Amino acid sequence: MTTDIDTVAIVGCGLIGSGWAIVYANAGLAVRLYDADPQGVVRARDMIAHELAEMAKLGLCGDPEPVVARITGCDDLSEAVGMADYVQESVRETVEAKTKVCAEIDACLPDHAILGSSSSGIPASDFTRDMKSRTRCFIVHPVNPPHLIPLVEIVPAPWSDPALIAPLRTFLERVGQTPILVEREIEGFVLNRLQGALLNEAFALFDEGYASAADIDLAVSHGLGTRWSFMGPFETIDLNAPQGIADYAARLAPLYTALAASRGMTAHWSDDAVGRATAERRAALSLDDLGRRSAWRNARLMDLAARRRRESDPDSVRG
Amino acid sequence: MTTDIDTVAIVGCGLIGSGWAIVYANAGLAVRLYDADPQGVVRARDMIAHELAEMAKLGLCGDPEPVVARITGCDDLSEAVGMADYVQESVRETVEAKTKVCAEIDACLPDHAILGSSSSGIPASDFTRDMKSRTRCFIVHPVNPPHLIPLVEIVPAPWSDPALIAPLRTFLERVGQTPILVEREIEGFVLNRLQGALLNEAFALFDEGYASAADIDLAVSHGLGTRWSFMGPFETIDLNAPQGIADYAARLAPLYTALAASRGMTAHWSDDAVGRATAERRAALSLDDLGRRSAWRNARLMDLAARRRRESDPDSVRG
Repeated sequence: MTTDIDTVAIVGCGLIGSGWAIVYANAGLAVRLYDADPQGVVRARDMIAHELAEMAKLGLCGDPEPVVARITGCDDLSEAVGMADYVQESVRETVEAKTKVCAEIDACLPDHAILGSSSSGIPASDFTRDMKSRTRCFIVHPVNPPHLIPLVEIVPAPWSDPALIAPLRTFLERVGQTPILVEREIEGFVLNRLQGALLNEAFALFDEGYASAADIDLAVSHGLGTRWSFMGPFETIDLNAPQGIADYAARLAPLYTALAASRGMTAHWSDDAVGRATAERRAALSLDDLGRRSAWRNARLMDLAARRRRESDPDSVRG
Repeated sequence: MTTDIDTVAIVGCGLIGSGWAIVYANAGLAVRLYDADPQGVVRARDMIAHELAEMAKLGLCGDPEPVVARITGCDDLSEAVGMADYVQESVRETVEAKTKVCAEIDACLPDHAILGSSSSGIPASDFTRDMKSRTRCFIVHPVNPPHLIPLVEIVPAPWSDPALIAPLRTFLERVGQTPILVEREIEGFVLNRLQGALLNEAFALFDEGYASAADIDLAVSHGLGTRWSFMGPFETIDLNAPQGIADYAARLAPLYTALAASRGMTAHWSDDAVGRATAERRAALSLDDLGRRSAWRNARLMDLAARRRRESDPDSVRG
């Protein structure tokens, strides 16, 4: 069904909605824009034209003209949604705003169409409960800006049709996104919970006077972020001990458990949890291949170090 | 005083010690290697030669030969430390191992020399208390590998001489590192506390069945890590609201406070903490310059998106 998605409606054309319009139009789909504020569509068109021109310079899209030509502004919500195979809701992040617009979408959503909400933390069950199309509603939460950072979270509500998850994932991959699945609802989903964990610890360290905001920022931008730009936390620790993640946990679970406890948090480094994480990692990468993958990591780090050097000091090589 | 550092001793030549040897020798200093295991120095020399050859290919160093020529293996600890202006201790991460080797270093450390420990989480007060040179001891904790990721944490013990912090920082900058200061001791320091916060939330989400380890990894490697590779958490949120960090906090502190509470953690988004963070950010970047810095961020994101595209799909441009 989602392989037949030809037309996408964007409801709410702020920064997120405009970014989504670029993603879908750049992938060859017809895009219909609607915003409750008539000036919203005008501003979105300007932003889209500007971004596409910049992207074309870097080879991120071809000629912007046919991409822009696939985008149509609509005066009514029904005019946008009524012709859509997929709707991307991107209005303000409040339960009230989302409930109201979803009721309007529900009134004109074609029977085959799927609704994805850009909600960054409010679960769909908070605003889709009363919709007749609620089995076809999901959270489809991007990272801002969606046309430059590909990750997107799919989060079903308790009443979302599980059979739609696989085709939704395929559709998002087809338009160049990298979807992940959050199996069931939780406030903040996965992305903002991970971001929030780092940010909350950063604010705690700052507030308690351990370091300046500038130095905490450097710890990420010149330290941890280098690895995280190409490896997630599980792969990072899997490659950080000779026998992989189980070996790492045996050495360092006590430290991380103590750090969690120092903030009042219950740690989740039980033998069972570590065992299941190990099983998943070993299915993805055998112990025999760990060395090869570590060499890949080192090559990536060296390449990033070389880029950093060129950017900060283009003419010099330390002798 | 630290401008006069010409000779560095490395005590403990595992991966961290070897990486430090590359940093210091590549910066033109004489490096004296010691390891309790005589084979340790041999293995370190092989690793150093291999890494320097790879680095030379990418322009991260010049001809490896003179760099290697600045590195001398020593059979005794005193032979390494006795001639040093600065000592980088990099032995195993246990209080026992560090206490023992620091006592040995204390016995032959020149009167002017500073001792930096690579400890990644154990505070210096746990193993330098009884040293006669303890006012000259600091944690100097790198990110692994130190020759490819520049960030380093300076953490004084309660008895460390505060007057040595500025010259130590200058010395580390001179050898190409990016030092941050942790004002006083805390388990895990700043770097591993930030890493631990992310990892503990990742393990909790995995253990509770919200997402696979692979999908959590993608959330970082294809989502959050993109921004964190060039911006820390404070700058990220400062650029994510029209009026900067105070504006962002007014909108989103309730969400992050709820996320903290959901894990039993006390949030640190008080008006006082946000006010101080705002004061620091505004001193570094005026509100008038926020737009320019946001444009810089967007250009970085676009450049990274273009790189990602070239790496994953070198021949194609989506039309």
